[in-house]
Amino acid sequence: MEQTVLQLLEKRDYHNLRSILSDMCAADIASLLEELPENKLPVVFRILPKELACDTFAYFDTDIQEVLIKAFSDTELEEVINQLYLDDTVDMIEEMPANIVRRILDHTTPEMRLEINQILKYPKDSAGSIMTTEYVSLKRDMTVQEAFTRIRRTAIDKETVYTCYVTENDRRLIGVVTVKDLLMHENDDIINDIMETNVIYVNTHEDQEIVAKTFEKYDFLALPVVDQEKRLIGIVTIDDAVDVLQDEATEDIEMMAAITPTDKPYLKTGIFETWKKRIPWLLLLMISATFTGSIIHHYEDALGAYIILSSFIPMLMDTGGNAGGQASVTIIRGLSLGEIEMGDILRIIWKEIRVAFLCGITLSVTVFFKILLIDRPAEQPVVIALIVAGTMALSVVVAKVVGCSLPILAKKIGFDPAVMASPFITTIVDTVSLIIYFNIVSNVMNI
Amino acid sequence: MEQTVLQLLEKRDYHNLRSILSDMCAADIASLLEELPENKLPVVFRILPKELACDTFAYFDTDIQEVLIKAFSDTELEEVINQLYLDDTVDMIEEMPANIVRRILDHTTPEMRLEINQILKYPKDSAGSIMTTEYVSLKRDMTVQEAFTRIRRTAIDKETVYTCYVTENDRRLIGVVTVKDLLMHENDDIINDIMETNVIYVNTHEDQEIVAKTFEKYDFLALPVVDQEKRLIGIVTIDDAVDVLQDEATEDIEMMAAITPTDKPYLKTGIFETWKKRIPWLLLLMISATFTGSIIHHYEDALGAYIILSSFIPMLMDTGGNAGGQASVTIIRGLSLGEIEMGDILRIIWKEIRVAFLCGITLSVTVFFKILLIDRPAEQPVVIALIVAGTMALSVVVAKVVGCSLPILAKKIGFDPAVMASPFITTIVDTVSLIIYFNIVSNVMNI
Repeated sequence: MEQTVLQLLEKRDYHNLRSILSDMCAADIASLLEELPENKLPVVFRILPKELACDTFAYFDTDIQEVLIKAFSDTELEEVINQLYLDDTVDMIEEMPANIVRRILDHTTPEMRLEINQILKYPKDSAGSIMTTEYVSLKRDMTVQEAFTRIRRTAIDKETVYTCYVTENDRRLIGVVTVKDLLMHENDDIINDIMETNVIYVNTHEDQEIVAKTFEKYDFLALPVVDQEKRLIGIVTIDDAVDVLQDEATEDIEMMAAITPTDKPYLKTGIFETWKKRIPWLLLLMISATFTGSIIHHYEDALGAYIILSSFIPMLMDTGGNAGGQASVTIIRGLSLGEIEMGDILRIIWKEIRVAFLCGITLSVTVFFKILLIDRPAEQPVVIALIVAGTMALSVVVAKVVGCSLPILAKKIGFDPAVMASPFITTIVDTVSLIIYFNIVSNVMNI
Repeated sequence: MEQTVLQLLEKRDYHNLRSILSDMCAADIASLLEELPENKLPVVFRILPKELACDTFAYFDTDIQEVLIKAFSDTELEEVINQLYLDDTVDMIEEMPANIVRRILDHTTPEMRLEINQILKYPKDSAGSIMTTEYVSLKRDMTVQEAFTRIRRTAIDKETVYTCYVTENDRRLIGVVTVKDLLMHENDDIINDIMETNVIYVNTHEDQEIVAKTFEKYDFLALPVVDQEKRLIGIVTIDDAVDVLQDEATEDIEMMAAITPTDKPYLKTGIFETWKKRIPWLLLLMISATFTGSIIHHYEDALGAYIILSSFIPMLMDTGGNAGGQASVTIIRGLSLGEIEMGDILRIIWKEIRVAFLCGITLSVTVFFKILLIDRPAEQPVVIALIVAGTMALSVVVAKVVGCSLPILAKKIGFDPAVMASPFITTIVDTVSLIIYFNIVSNVMNI
């Protein structure tokens, strides 16, 4: 497809190119055009029918949008900006360099500029920052017919018209009515009688994660955002809520792998930026891992006598880390999804102890027979196998308990539980496993 | 709130209880009722106004639904089933024991039974299994007014009416029109002239992950599902697509932590079930971690001479594992989000090599000075510090390259890339780090 476009461009066959592209969806055209060389982009973009061009523009990544804006004439810029939904414009402005932002704002109407500035004021990741101010508002004394007239008149600018908000004259939100409700009532029914008055809303400063969870819980298509006085300020639409859910999952996953989260796609992040996101954690974990080294060093005499014992250290440490990681990651995701709450902590620990017991037994028995049948140590095979198996069972139990309780404790003191995933748990569990191991060794072997 | 409900129940003050609950949303009532003791549930449920009760029923987890169905009279069951949307009924049936399924099917109309059975036939996790057959279909020669009449007549049973599908007489899908489009046209405009004919659809057997990604890409509220002959079979609604996105993220996270994924919430999974999801991976990883043990054992003489060298092993292994885990998790998530594709593999490896170089340098320099200034080995401090720093740099590079390429290779040969996360990478990287370490040690120290 990309080849066809390039060939038609080469041949300057703009007529056929236009007719091919006109049959496609905006989202598909955007994916296709992003693959083209940057210098061809403005030409192809100008071939598109105007409305389709504007729709396509909204789907581009910001770096492509920047290339296009730089190539736009003032009239072109104005056309695109006027067609974009307000929240898409704001998203774009947030990512652009200052000179382009100025150029964009110069080509918007004064009212629009006011609204953009208002949204830009809200803290990053707040409901206010992801909302749009383009919603349909109705009055309580309107009839269904009047409501439809109003929707029809204003629909063109609105991202969604299916949920309408009923407000007082001071913009206080008093009800909500869906187009489906309107369709199912008579033309002369009064909005006041059919609206739902138990409105679920969020405050402008609410965290976007809470916003996304509210969508999930109530299966809404749009959610109203109000200020302290419960005046309607804007709405968040489901597509933005879905993006938030995905971003939050990515953030959790990155933190679980000891990476500082970023909003940027991997291939668009620079080398230094990637390094900066990863190195602090690697350094921190490296330093803390030296404690395990000191423990080994401390017991080196014991190891000197029975050096075969040192060969089981990696296995004991890895297994402890894996067992703890399983528990912590399960709990972290449960907390994120809202399936697990603070109050469940004792139930969770009790459950993990029992699971750890089962896992510990299975692993111990396996390792016991593996040592006797496969490794076959020259001296005291049964004692060595028992020491290793015993350490395994104990450290799996410790690992699971540490793994399940740390994320909950982190949340309690206001940290993101996702930090308490495998890498951290591993470092802690390594230390504990080694202490258990060497204590058993020194007691049993009388060193 | 829960206390109030219990107190009112105790006092048999059903009147006040009913009026409190009637003011709440179905989703909130469901959360509240799930906290009540099981034996109180049917009583409170019966207090609710009928329609609200049915709405609430759809929000319950299946175990609560089971309790209620067991308590229902035949009439009650019939009422609830008739009110539920078809896809919710199917979801419920999939989780219920056979005797309850039979009871449910006995109380549905023959047509509904047919449709339920049809959806149940589709493979788990396919588009067919998450769709609903309750959609609005229009004909191409209808006017806008006729379309509205049809929507009004059938809206009550439909989960969404906002996207309508235009089909031929043989049910072949030929177009799509939204209620917003209809509102913005004149009453006597013809559907054929205003419908979008470039319809995005999925096949009944398409994987639900693809379905969810299609929603994300096009910002749809509903997506049509067709059979091989492009006949319209059903639609998937955005709320189900959101659930799929969340489930897929959870699945990735669980696999990254070496857990067999499950659909069940943590607190509802039994001890044995949790054990079964975790133990195979722990066993597998434990066995493979013994290779690192054998390597240490193999070089034990070298360690015997300079036993301080063994105290750096945990740090080297942990850091390698963490560095590799960072790379692999970033790539796995990128693949899941569709930000990274197969073709990017060389670009990714090249990027990771450069990041690894930066990370390796930082870590090496830190560890070099740490050994010289803090650990201060008695013999040959500079040589030892150089050996450890050199191993660190090399193993970080290896770890990053292994970490970024294995998930892509896994995908290439048809495995889920998420398996290639930290635990697996750690095991591989541990072995490689140790081999590097001992080779440097034996060459430099001339052992």
